[in-house]
Amino acid sequence: MISYIARIKVTLKELVNDPQGLAVEDGLKTLGFEEISNVRVGKFIEINLNAPNEEMAREQLNEMCKKLLSNIVIENYEFELEQNST
Amino acid sequence: MISYIARIKVTLKELVNDPQGLAVEDGLKTLGFEEISNVRVGKFIEINLNAPNEEMAREQLNEMCKKLLSNIVIENYEFELEQNST
Repeated sequence: MISYIARIKVTLKELVNDPQGLAVEDGLKTLGFEEISNVRVGKFIEINLNAPNEEMAREQLNEMCKKLLSNIVIENYEFELEQNST
Repeated sequence: MISYIARIKVTLKELVNDPQGLAVEDGLKTLGFEEISNVRVGKFIEINLNAPNEEMAREQLNEMCKKLLSNIVIENYEFELEQNST
Protein backbone atom coordinates (compact mmCIF):
# COMPACT_ATOMS: atom_id res chain seq x y z
CA MET A 1 0.00 0.00 0.00
CA ILE A 2 1.16 3.52 -0.78
CA SER A 3 0.21 6.43 1.45
CA TYR A 4 -1.28 9.46 -0.27
CA ILE A 5 -2.56 12.86 0.77
CA ALA A 6 -5.62 14.06 -1.12
CA ARG A 7 -6.63 17.73 -1.18
CA ILE A 8 -10.21 18.17 -2.32
CA LYS A 9 -11.97 21.39 -3.27
CA VAL A 10 -15.77 21.36 -3.25
CA THR A 11 -17.37 24.42 -4.84
CA LEU A 12 -20.94 25.41 -5.61
CA LYS A 13 -21.85 25.29 -9.28
CA GLU A 14 -21.87 28.67 -10.93
CA LEU A 15 -25.63 29.00 -11.24
CA VAL A 16 -26.34 28.03 -7.63
CA ASN A 17 -26.99 30.83 -5.13
CA ASP A 18 -24.35 31.18 -2.46
CA PRO A 19 -25.77 33.04 0.57
CA GLN A 20 -22.61 32.39 2.58
CA GLY A 21 -20.53 33.96 -0.18
CA LEU A 22 -22.85 37.00 -0.27
CA ALA A 23 -22.52 37.39 3.50
CA VAL A 24 -18.73 37.26 3.27
CA GLU A 25 -18.79 39.78 0.41
CA ASP A 26 -20.96 42.15 2.44
CA GLY A 27 -18.65 41.73 5.42
CA LEU A 28 -15.55 42.49 3.38
CA LYS A 29 -17.16 45.56 1.82
CA THR A 30 -18.19 46.82 5.26
CA LEU A 31 -14.53 46.51 6.27
CA GLY A 32 -13.59 48.77 3.36
CA PHE A 33 -12.61 46.26 0.68
CA GLU A 34 -14.66 47.81 -2.11
CA GLU A 35 -12.89 46.32 -5.13
CA ILE A 36 -14.21 42.78 -4.73
CA SER A 37 -16.99 40.81 -6.34
CA ASN A 38 -18.29 37.31 -6.90
CA VAL A 39 -17.26 35.83 -3.55
CA ARG A 40 -17.95 32.08 -3.38
CA VAL A 41 -17.45 29.89 -0.33
CA GLY A 42 -16.77 26.18 -0.63
CA LYS A 43 -15.08 23.41 1.30
CA PHE A 44 -11.49 22.26 1.38
CA ILE A 45 -10.96 18.71 2.62
CA GLU A 46 -7.69 16.88 3.28
CA ILE A 47 -7.63 13.11 3.58
CA ASN A 48 -4.80 10.64 4.14
CA LEU A 49 -5.44 7.55 2.07
CA ASN A 50 -3.69 4.22 1.55
CA ALA A 51 -4.09 2.56 -1.83
CA PRO A 52 -2.14 0.08 -3.97
CA ASN A 53 -1.52 2.67 -6.69
CA GLU A 54 -2.48 6.14 -7.84
CA GLU A 55 -5.22 4.97 -10.17
CA MET A 56 -7.03 3.15 -7.37
CA ALA A 57 -6.55 6.10 -5.04
CA ARG A 58 -8.19 8.37 -7.63
CA GLU A 59 -11.03 5.93 -8.13
CA GLN A 60 -11.73 5.77 -4.39
CA LEU A 61 -11.58 9.54 -4.08
CA ASN A 62 -14.07 10.00 -6.89
CA GLU A 63 -16.41 7.63 -5.10
CA MET A 64 -15.98 9.42 -1.76
CA CYS A 65 -16.70 12.76 -3.41
CA LYS A 66 -19.82 11.46 -5.12
CA LYS A 67 -21.18 9.56 -2.13
CA LEU A 68 -20.42 11.85 0.78
CA LEU A 69 -18.09 14.80 0.32
CA SER A 70 -20.05 16.73 -2.29
CA ASN A 71 -23.60 17.06 -3.48
CA ILE A 72 -23.14 16.61 -7.20
CA VAL A 73 -26.49 18.18 -7.99
CA ILE A 74 -25.29 21.60 -6.86
CA GLU A 75 -21.54 21.22 -6.32
CA ASN A 76 -18.38 20.52 -8.30
CA TYR A 77 -15.32 18.87 -6.86
CA GLU A 78 -11.71 18.52 -7.87
CA PHE A 79 -8.77 17.01 -6.06
CA GLU A 80 -4.99 16.81 -6.08
CA LEU A 81 -3.23 13.66 -5.03
CA GLU A 82 0.26 13.61 -3.59
CA GLN A 83 2.36 10.75 -2.33
CA ASN A 84 2.89 11.06 1.40
CA SER A 85 6.57 11.27 2.17
CA THR A 86 6.33 11.21 5.96
CA MET B 1 -6.90 48.41 -12.29
CA ILE B 2 -6.18 44.77 -13.04
CA SER B 3 -8.76 42.10 -12.35
CA TYR B 4 -7.59 39.08 -10.35
CA ILE B 5 -9.13 35.87 -9.09
CA ALA B 6 -7.97 34.79 -5.64
CA ARG B 7 -8.39 31.23 -4.40
CA ILE B 8 -8.01 30.98 -0.64
CA LYS B 9 -7.68 27.86 1.48
CA VAL B 10 -8.41 28.18 5.18
CA THR B 11 -7.41 25.17 7.27
CA LEU B 12 -7.41 24.42 10.97
CA LYS B 13 -3.97 24.36 12.57
CA GLU B 14 -2.64 20.90 13.15
CA LEU B 15 -3.10 20.84 16.91
CA VAL B 16 -6.68 22.09 16.81
CA ASN B 17 -9.47 19.53 17.14
CA ASP B 18 -11.61 19.11 14.05
CA PRO B 19 -14.98 17.59 14.96
CA GLN B 20 -16.28 18.10 11.42
CA GLY B 21 -13.30 16.20 10.05
CA LEU B 22 -13.90 13.37 12.51
CA ALA B 23 -17.56 13.19 11.47
CA VAL B 24 -16.59 13.01 7.79
CA GLU B 25 -14.00 10.33 8.58
CA ASP B 26 -16.59 8.26 10.45
CA GLY B 27 -19.03 8.69 7.59
CA LEU B 28 -16.50 7.56 4.99
CA LYS B 29 -15.52 4.54 7.09
CA THR B 30 -19.17 3.59 7.49
CA LEU B 31 -19.44 3.67 3.69
CA GLY B 32 -16.59 1.16 3.50
CA PHE B 33 -13.59 3.42 2.91
CA GLU B 34 -11.38 1.86 5.57
CA GLU B 35 -7.98 3.02 4.33
CA ILE B 36 -8.35 6.66 5.31
CA SER B 37 -7.14 8.71 8.23
CA ASN B 38 -6.57 12.26 9.40
CA VAL B 39 -9.52 13.88 7.63
CA ARG B 40 -9.52 17.67 8.03
CA VAL B 41 -12.24 20.00 6.79
CA GLY B 42 -11.53 23.62 5.94
CA LYS B 43 -12.88 26.37 3.74
CA PHE B 44 -12.19 27.25 0.14
CA ILE B 45 -13.03 30.81 -0.85
CA GLU B 46 -12.90 32.43 -4.30
CA ILE B 47 -12.88 36.21 -4.67
CA ASN B 48 -12.70 38.48 -7.71
CA LEU B 49 -10.54 41.45 -6.87
CA ASN B 50 -9.44 44.60 -8.70
CA ALA B 51 -6.08 46.06 -7.76
CA PRO B 52 -3.42 48.25 -9.41
CA ASN B 53 -0.84 45.47 -9.30
CA GLU B 54 -0.17 42.00 -7.89
CA GLU B 55 1.67 43.24 -4.83
CA MET B 56 -1.27 45.37 -3.73
CA ALA B 57 -3.69 42.55 -4.47
CA ARG B 58 -1.66 40.26 -2.20
CA GLU B 59 -1.52 42.86 0.51
CA GLN B 60 -5.30 43.32 0.44
CA LEU B 61 -5.89 39.58 0.48
CA ASN B 62 -3.64 39.12 3.51
CA GLU B 63 -5.65 41.79 5.28
CA MET B 64 -8.97 40.18 4.32
CA CYS B 65 -7.76 36.81 5.58
CA LYS B 66 -6.58 38.22 8.89
CA LYS B 67 -9.61 40.43 9.49
CA LEU B 68 -12.49 38.28 8.32
CA LEU B 69 -11.83 35.12 6.33
CA SER B 70 -9.82 33.19 8.89
CA ASN B 71 -9.37 33.06 12.62
CA ILE B 72 -5.59 33.24 12.87
CA VAL B 73 -5.59 31.88 16.41
CA ILE B 74 -6.73 28.46 15.23
CA GLU B 75 -6.51 28.59 11.43
CA ASN B 76 -3.91 28.91 8.69
CA TYR B 77 -4.59 30.40 5.31
CA GLU B 78 -2.91 30.40 1.94
CA PHE B 79 -3.98 31.80 -1.39
CA GLU B 80 -3.22 31.70 -5.09
CA LEU B 81 -3.67 34.76 -7.25
CA GLU B 82 -4.39 34.61 -10.93
CA GLN B 83 -4.98 37.37 -13.43
CA ASN B 84 -8.56 37.25 -14.66
CA SER B 85 -8.63 36.80 -18.41
CA THR B 86 -12.40 37.09 -18.91
